[in-house]
Amino acid sequence: MKILVINSGSSSLKFQVVDPENEKALAKGVCERIGIDGIFNYRTDGGISLKEPVAMPDHKAAVGVLLSMLVDPERGVLKDFSEIDVVGHRLVHGGEKFTGSVVITEEVIQAMTECNDLAPLHNPANLVGVAACRELMPDILMVGVFDTAFNQTMEPKAFLYGLPYRFYEKLKIRRYGFHGISHKYVSRRAAEFMGQDYRRVKTIVCHLGNGASICAVKYGQVVDNSMGFTPLEGLVMGTRCGDVDAGALEYLAKKENLDFQQIMTILNQESGVLGISSNFSSDFRELKDAEIKYNDKAALAREIFVYRVAKYIGSYAAAMNGVDNIVFTAGVGENDSDIREQICEYLEFLGIAIDEVKNREQGEAVRISDGASRVNVLVVKTNEELEIAREAAAVAAQVKENRETKAKGAAHHAE
Amino acid sequence: MKILVINSGSSSLKFQVVDPENEKALAKGVCERIGIDGIFNYRTDGGISLKEPVAMPDHKAAVGVLLSMLVDPERGVLKDFSEIDVVGHRLVHGGEKFTGSVVITEEVIQAMTECNDLAPLHNPANLVGVAACRELMPDILMVGVFDTAFNQTMEPKAFLYGLPYRFYEKLKIRRYGFHGISHKYVSRRAAEFMGQDYRRVKTIVCHLGNGASICAVKYGQVVDNSMGFTPLEGLVMGTRCGDVDAGALEYLAKKENLDFQQIMTILNQESGVLGISSNFSSDFRELKDAEIKYNDKAALAREIFVYRVAKYIGSYAAAMNGVDNIVFTAGVGENDSDIREQICEYLEFLGIAIDEVKNREQGEAVRISDGASRVNVLVVKTNEELEIAREAAAVAAQVKENRETKAKGAAHHAE
Repeated sequence: MKILVINSGSSSLKFQVVDPENEKALAKGVCERIGIDGIFNYRTDGGISLKEPVAMPDHKAAVGVLLSMLVDPERGVLKDFSEIDVVGHRLVHGGEKFTGSVVITEEVIQAMTECNDLAPLHNPANLVGVAACRELMPDILMVGVFDTAFNQTMEPKAFLYGLPYRFYEKLKIRRYGFHGISHKYVSRRAAEFMGQDYRRVKTIVCHLGNGASICAVKYGQVVDNSMGFTPLEGLVMGTRCGDVDAGALEYLAKKENLDFQQIMTILNQESGVLGISSNFSSDFRELKDAEIKYNDKAALAREIFVYRVAKYIGSYAAAMNGVDNIVFTAGVGENDSDIREQICEYLEFLGIAIDEVKNREQGEAVRISDGASRVNVLVVKTNEELEIAREAAAVAAQVKENRETKAKGAAHHAE
Repeated sequence: MKILVINSGSSSLKFQVVDPENEKALAKGVCERIGIDGIFNYRTDGGISLKEPVAMPDHKAAVGVLLSMLVDPERGVLKDFSEIDVVGHRLVHGGEKFTGSVVITEEVIQAMTECNDLAPLHNPANLVGVAACRELMPDILMVGVFDTAFNQTMEPKAFLYGLPYRFYEKLKIRRYGFHGISHKYVSRRAAEFMGQDYRRVKTIVCHLGNGASICAVKYGQVVDNSMGFTPLEGLVMGTRCGDVDAGALEYLAKKENLDFQQIMTILNQESGVLGISSNFSSDFRELKDAEIKYNDKAALAREIFVYRVAKYIGSYAAAMNGVDNIVFTAGVGENDSDIREQICEYLEFLGIAIDEVKNREQGEAVRISDGASRVNVLVVKTNEELEIAREAAAVAAQVKENRETKAKGAAHHAE
């Protein structure tokens, strides 16, 4: 039994084959420039690695290319497709309808299509990938794993904005939170690594990448998430502004004669650390290199980023009335030890102390707080594909059990 | 020596006469419906109290009415105007130009007029009051006390948004913070009440009224303030939304076919606890009464308010790496013991414990945390007029000293 994980975007499609026995990735890759020309990236745990142009006029062609490669006698990792027990699809927005992973049926596709408005860039692209897989593997179980599902445990006090209530009822305007697959994987992995019962710990996950979000997870359930109705809210990110006064936006629109759409382009693509650094870079490593060379704005961009993360951690400690584990993950969170150290300097009042040596260690999971620290601080490498594979396997197991129960019931009735 | 404090709005003008010797208000009142018909409210510490219609076609007329009353032989508190040593004006927005209180000169009026765009509802109204006073009391020193000045110690990491830097340079879009006069008075009063050195304590002031803001004051200087470029940002308020995802606003605008101006009207006037409670009330007492009668949305509005305050407190504890005093003030903060208790329940992790009996006491300043609490929690009645009077007196004393120094210098030169 193997699990194929698919993450389909508008012009790219990531895939991974996971062996659920040892949770290792047998093969992974990306189909890029779908509908343009096509580039195929592929690696196996056996050491095969290739990147070559392959025509991919559409997503179905891309799925065809990757499936052919997976069963290729020379470079493949499967004998035939029957080895694939289930396909797990990363789906971005499930609205309020999906609080967990589901078998993808026509009804699910219909319900997800109804959420297209909430994630116009992502949901339709996800569904194109699903359709391509269903066409090429009609007999294989497809499971949808939503990025919003884990966050659905938020209570109204956390997910409602201070807006007229009718906009929630009518338009479903509320906080959804994102990065749920990562937050779930990382918060659980941290507890496991620390030998704690996941259902008894309070965790703050700092998913710090080009997109960044913080999530408060109490006893295995999300209490709050810094991303909101869209992934624009919360932290200052690579190019996204994060929290900002709506009054400032109106002023900006008026003074610069911009409409809402133009403002949103600025907030999503020209803001964040890129904007603060006066267009220097959205890359935290480049900002760091520049900081050393006395680029004041690069330094300021990093300083603001750090300050906002620290404030959110304080805020979520209050939301849960305490915190046991603070976990850093994703590109910046996993690799930028300076940023981790600077964030934790704000948090000494929580009894947090970092071990400077451990903070510079690399690993799949590292505890970087020192023995005396009242809160565990960890770095955990996120693995969204593995989380999707686990979810897909769990749903597949449930489906199998249901079938067997039904079969038994039928046999019983026949007697 | 007496100090006249003036707080001039677009159609109303509040005033108070303060005796700097004992810091008592000898008389206070409000001129209402200026330019409409005119109502004059007036009270003295001697027990006189009146409310009567008086024609007030403009602010000058209103100032004329109050000045006449102040020297009225029967109901006044002054023998003549020469007793007024200085007039302290509450000025809302000083932009980045004013970091403290100043003698109002032509240059100051000019500079403040340049900030009119930043506070279109308030600054012009303030200046009309200043002009009326200057005309009627041409020989009396006028001092401007800005609501933004105390917040000017914020560092760029706190006052900059994650927007392109040029919008700060060109348009001065940044966090200004408001309620500065109240935050200064209350944070200092709390330290004085606790017998602490103000320059050595970390204070979080929760100014919770119909407009609400939270301020982090470290060693006498503002570190952060929840209100931003405008008073819309931060907490959920009576009718203002506070923090909200800009992406949600764009979605709302598109779906409901609203322009920026219409959105701002909703966010400022139809949101907050009023909006969450589906237009039930913006008054926290009415919401509480309704909560008892099982009005779910009224209860939800209060719950969201409490949750957001608690999160800001946690956030500002991180901003200052700790907190010594948490102080509640203004209408809701001073009078709603349930809300205070509910907020503090989130904060047990900071070692905070409330004394339920003290929390129900009334007073100018009350410590409501119990003896074992690691953080002092207080209720302090705010007194913006007294703070303005103090600032005005301090500036007046400085002016006098400068004059004497100059005179001495001149005398010295003349010798």
